[in-house]
Amino acid sequence: MCVRAAIAGASGYAGGELLRLLLSHPHIELGALTAASSAGTTVGEHHPHLAPIADVVLQPTTLDVLQNHDVVFLALPHGHSGEIANVLPAETIVIDCGADFRLADPVAWKRWYQSDHAGTWPYGLPELPGARKQLEKATRIAVPGCYPTAASLALAPAYQAGLAEPDAVIVAASGTSGAGKSLKPHLLGAEVMGSLSAYGVGGAHRHTPEIIQNLSQAADEPVTVSFTPVLAPLPRGILATCSALAKPGVTLQKLREAYADAYREEPFVQLLPENRWPSTAATLGANTAQIQVALDEDAGRIVVVAAIDNLTKGTAGAAVQCLNLALGLPETTGLPMTGVAP
Amino acid sequence: MCVRAAIAGASGYAGGELLRLLLSHPHIELGALTAASSAGTTVGEHHPHLAPIADVVLQPTTLDVLQNHDVVFLALPHGHSGEIANVLPAETIVIDCGADFRLADPVAWKRWYQSDHAGTWPYGLPELPGARKQLEKATRIAVPGCYPTAASLALAPAYQAGLAEPDAVIVAASGTSGAGKSLKPHLLGAEVMGSLSAYGVGGAHRHTPEIIQNLSQAADEPVTVSFTPVLAPLPRGILATCSALAKPGVTLQKLREAYADAYREEPFVQLLPENRWPSTAATLGANTAQIQVALDEDAGRIVVVAAIDNLTKGTAGAAVQCLNLALGLPETTGLPMTGVAP
Amino acid sequence: MCVRAAIAGASGYAGGELLRLLLSHPHIELGALTAASSAGTTVGEHHPHLAPIADVVLQPTTLDVLQNHDVVFLALPHGHSGEIANVLPAETIVIDCGADFRLADPVAWKRWYQSDHAGTWPYGLPELPGARKQLEKATRIAVPGCYPTAASLALAPAYQAGLAEPDAVIVAASGTSGAGKSLKPHLLGAEVMGSLSAYGVGGAHRHTPEIIQNLSQAADEPVTVSFTPVLAPLPRGILATCSALAKPGVTLQKLREAYADAYREEPFVQLLPENRWPSTAATLGANTAQIQVALDEDAGRIVVVAAIDNLTKGTAGAAVQCLNLALGLPETTGLPMTGVAP
Amino acid sequence: MCVRAAIAGASGYAGGELLRLLLSHPHIELGALTAASSAGTTVGEHHPHLAPIADVVLQPTTLDVLQNHDVVFLALPHGHSGEIANVLPAETIVIDCGADFRLADPVAWKRWYQSDHAGTWPYGLPELPGARKQLEKATRIAVPGCYPTAASLALAPAYQAGLAEPDAVIVAASGTSGAGKSLKPHLLGAEVMGSLSAYGVGGAHRHTPEIIQNLSQAADEPVTVSFTPVLAPLPRGILATCSALAKPGVTLQKLREAYADAYREEPFVQLLPENRWPSTAATLGANTAQIQVALDEDAGRIVVVAAIDNLTKGTAGAAVQCLNLALGLPETTGLPMTGVAP
Repeated sequence: MCVRAAIAGASGYAGGELLRLLLSHPHIELGALTAASSAGTTVGEHHPHLAPIADVVLQPTTLDVLQNHDVVFLALPHGHSGEIANVLPAETIVIDCGADFRLADPVAWKRWYQSDHAGTWPYGLPELPGARKQLEKATRIAVPGCYPTAASLALAPAYQAGLAEPDAVIVAASGTSGAGKSLKPHLLGAEVMGSLSAYGVGGAHRHTPEIIQNLSQAADEPVTVSFTPVLAPLPRGILATCSALAKPGVTLQKLREAYADAYREEPFVQLLPENRWPSTAATLGANTAQIQVALDEDAGRIVVVAAIDNLTKGTAGAAVQCLNLALGLPETTGLPMTGVAP
Repeated sequence: MCVRAAIAGASGYAGGELLRLLLSHPHIELGALTAASSAGTTVGEHHPHLAPIADVVLQPTTLDVLQNHDVVFLALPHGHSGEIANVLPAETIVIDCGADFRLADPVAWKRWYQSDHAGTWPYGLPELPGARKQLEKATRIAVPGCYPTAASLALAPAYQAGLAEPDAVIVAASGTSGAGKSLKPHLLGAEVMGSLSAYGVGGAHRHTPEIIQNLSQAADEPVTVSFTPVLAPLPRGILATCSALAKPGVTLQKLREAYADAYREEPFVQLLPENRWPSTAATLGANTAQIQVALDEDAGRIVVVAAIDNLTKGTAGAAVQCLNLALGLPETTGLPMTGVAP
Repeated sequence: MCVRAAIAGASGYAGGELLRLLLSHPHIELGALTAASSAGTTVGEHHPHLAPIADVVLQPTTLDVLQNHDVVFLALPHGHSGEIANVLPAETIVIDCGADFRLADPVAWKRWYQSDHAGTWPYGLPELPGARKQLEKATRIAVPGCYPTAASLALAPAYQAGLAEPDAVIVAASGTSGAGKSLKPHLLGAEVMGSLSAYGVGGAHRHTPEIIQNLSQAADEPVTVSFTPVLAPLPRGILATCSALAKPGVTLQKLREAYADAYREEPFVQLLPENRWPSTAATLGANTAQIQVALDEDAGRIVVVAAIDNLTKGTAGAAVQCLNLALGLPETTGLPMTGVAP
Repeated sequence: MCVRAAIAGASGYAGGELLRLLLSHPHIELGALTAASSAGTTVGEHHPHLAPIADVVLQPTTLDVLQNHDVVFLALPHGHSGEIANVLPAETIVIDCGADFRLADPVAWKRWYQSDHAGTWPYGLPELPGARKQLEKATRIAVPGCYPTAASLALAPAYQAGLAEPDAVIVAASGTSGAGKSLKPHLLGAEVMGSLSAYGVGGAHRHTPEIIQNLSQAADEPVTVSFTPVLAPLPRGILATCSALAKPGVTLQKLREAYADAYREEPFVQLLPENRWPSTAATLGANTAQIQVALDEDAGRIVVVAAIDNLTKGTAGAAVQCLNLALGLPETTGLPMTGVAP
């Protein structure tokens, strides 16, 4: 099988990671790579690590350019995907790495993104209960946000198994590539290195409703979520520390069993052996997640820590994983299973 | 005034930071600097940043060496301070940077440190309600742990003002100097850089009972605490993200007022203006803390973020601040009020 | 003594470091702080580490604002200092942290900066032979570039003592604050962290003629210089590795003696004991330089390594050091002698 | 084809990188993985990034264990490879990642390693003139040191083409994984992050004779080398800045042509387009090298900068590249051609 893939928004970090992964995917032929203001420049100017395609010229992000591909990846700022997706043929597989089609609730969309809801596509986190089935043969796929990926992998099994009270607290530190390539003073290397800083505190981050959606679905009841993101001095990686009050009678054994059950067959999720804890370095460049669970009996809380690479399992790797499902390929096709460490 | 100060444990990170601060303290004359296995080596071998005293030779940590000083700082592994403190004269000011005299409850001590309780000394966090008074003219002082400093500065005002439910969740990321100079594989630069990792999850970190003690005292009722530390890729700095359910009727205004009241007169605590968030870089090498508060109305939680330098306000700076109080000096004497940034 | 100091360009990194240092200088009262596009904003928005003056509002960089100060520091992009300096009274001490008045040769200026030469002021590296005298009571001072400071401290004594052939090779790695706060993609944290990159290779960096000027003056003959800067993943710090062929008969002993002679009385230069090597961390936030020398007998080369903080000894600290000389104060007044490490 | 490979020294960084690469090599089946003091522990304890083999137990490094493999990789401290290699069958492919068999000159070996010379094996840098041929079908291969790889790729073409005087100056900054997993205080994260430091200055680093050997062979005359390594705050990556006086008549065009000729057919070496400069991030985890050349006409020097990942092209990737040659496979089999960036 050989499918031809275009990437809209190939100059950014998500686009670059898509390219890195697709270059070693055995069934993908790269088609058009597009950009907005960077159209006309080469891949090498934006992604010096992608030596094999350094000389490929980025084209403008237009429908003409994006048509006639089997797959179109959208790695655009939110608000831009709907228009493109609507005019691409229904049989073209469109995979949106942006937020536009993630939320099911138009009211939540409007509140958090101050614009009209574009719609809801199958949600690209196959490890969530029921999600994989909707992705098989799908032609429209919404790739999850990076924080929701980490947080949902961490807490969904506890909610699915009925072990946690519907009131979650999530603190997730992220490498700065999560903020994209936008030129903002607080993202300069000199500001970022050697510093930890908070932002979007108090439930202000737009990934909050997506986390609520996922956990509520797993719990089958509304879950409230306190989510705080932290900017940490590393290029890639999210470490999410997640907790919720344990329901009466929960034991560590029950908890571990629930996670073992949830992830036993999942190729990309590694539930660590006891006494080992996730580190983002272990997932660098890999489509994997490391998970560990604990029961704090004094505080009565379930605590789960998840580590992912925000650009791989958190964005582009998930997109390729979903493409594999859409194409009927083995889910791990072309995806790195080991991190680059140390 | 000129007081003569010894440091027991001068080769470690806490000892080095004490030296850095004391070198620019106008009323301190350095006396004996001691070490265990490093006795006989020079300060320059351990602390190349301390150029003015590079040639000073470290002496063994014995009573003979430590006697005859006005002040003795103890920067030793826990379990070693009691023996020394007991035989130093009552009028010698002894300031323990270790854990030995922090906990009031012998049962908690035994549970967390598996040894006999050495006692309880005035607790060196002057910003806590009632604490400053006990430090004035004190001759025995227990310097708080670095995580408890950050967490307590973050949440004590909310508890003191009766705004928060007695169930706190704290996730605090720390630079690796917090783990000291111990030669462990996971602290090697190649492991640490570019990685975030969890440890002591599920309430297993020894700073937990100290946080509980401080918050319970502020709340005047028992507070349960879920505390998770995170190892982050920076040498210094703690960013603590702390939250608790808000009591009924709490508003953002009430919350800000409580913090403004608590810290209005505090020289080292900076309650940030709205929409600005703490960063550890802003406190690097300074005895300051940056605090910001938020009210997440959806989740019903108070969220407070605190940034400190774990070696300065988190350890050695607090020790000097307490010394100033013990000596009746202005509290800020010799202490940096600005961070080194970017 | 109390002198009133203005800073033009207070929102940038050099301006911020000047502020940090001046805040603890016992004879300075801060006057006007100015900025270009940031006029009207507060210091706290640009420099969150400068808590004590967080609320001070930046004024526009105009002559009106800058007049009526005893000292005016200029921390502006090159090409802007001349105009301001020309209209300030002759008795006002003007200290330019930019490049405008560093080069003595108008031809060199024109070649490297493509503009008219503004003139030549006393050169603010007191450790160079003959330099200190010109700075005492000076009212116009050109602060050296950061790379030239490191390279000149490293090699000037060898040239001064006639030990090195006039053909120097300098490779200097710098933290990214050296590139200022300009919003360029390659300075984003995600690009910088975990990466070393070259730039200005082949003698293309504008600091080259300044290094040539300093070394040629020390050698009393023209010295050619191959200078390569490297961008390294740290906020601050320059490590300059400098070498030149040894003249016949040079021994390690002669070499060490030359450096010991050159720096014996220098408060800010630390010639390290044998077998110890400079690290930038040891100078972080300090106005110090660490130097070590070696003689590679196989290669016949003198190798000297210098470490400084590019913002302190490399810029703002040097400016304050020169101010002290201009005012007749002890040269170390208000300047940190110890780094912040680890 | 399926060959069975053992790794002696699998718990270290070189061993871990070999494992990462071999896990995605289509013709390799992993056999015994051995360690010294870590025998009996699992791969997961040492290499949390290698999820697929986390549970594999390390065996002791004995002949019994290493026998009966088609390939044996040795990732041992120098001095340990000879004994093992001597008793393995001649038809077993033995690939030594250590130094033991790199130097041709027993005198140089003895001088730099203070022990008896074990011998000389085909040198595993196929990009050097004449080297590839000796590696095809080889059964004993000496993998180059990481610094010599970067320095030789940078300067060999200039020497080969007769463009450079035989007097090279090399300053190479390396990530800290290059120092291995040894538990030394100066390699702790808190010491390394935010700091650049020199070591082995003045020609003291053991990679010096290897660089001399390579460049002298390329030049066909003795080349003296001044080599200074720098420890930089990143886990992986070497940036080597290399220069030599240009021979009379050298132009930039001639220089670029020489490098284009040398590397046109080399799959792993990327000679960058003009005005683009190497960065280590672009090679992270890849078996690639980025090279750029410049001619500094003022200084009369050729300046070449090379970036590699010290663990991949600098060690384990080179080992696999050589294995491919030894097996008659396409040289790029199983080797990453793109870095993991940002």
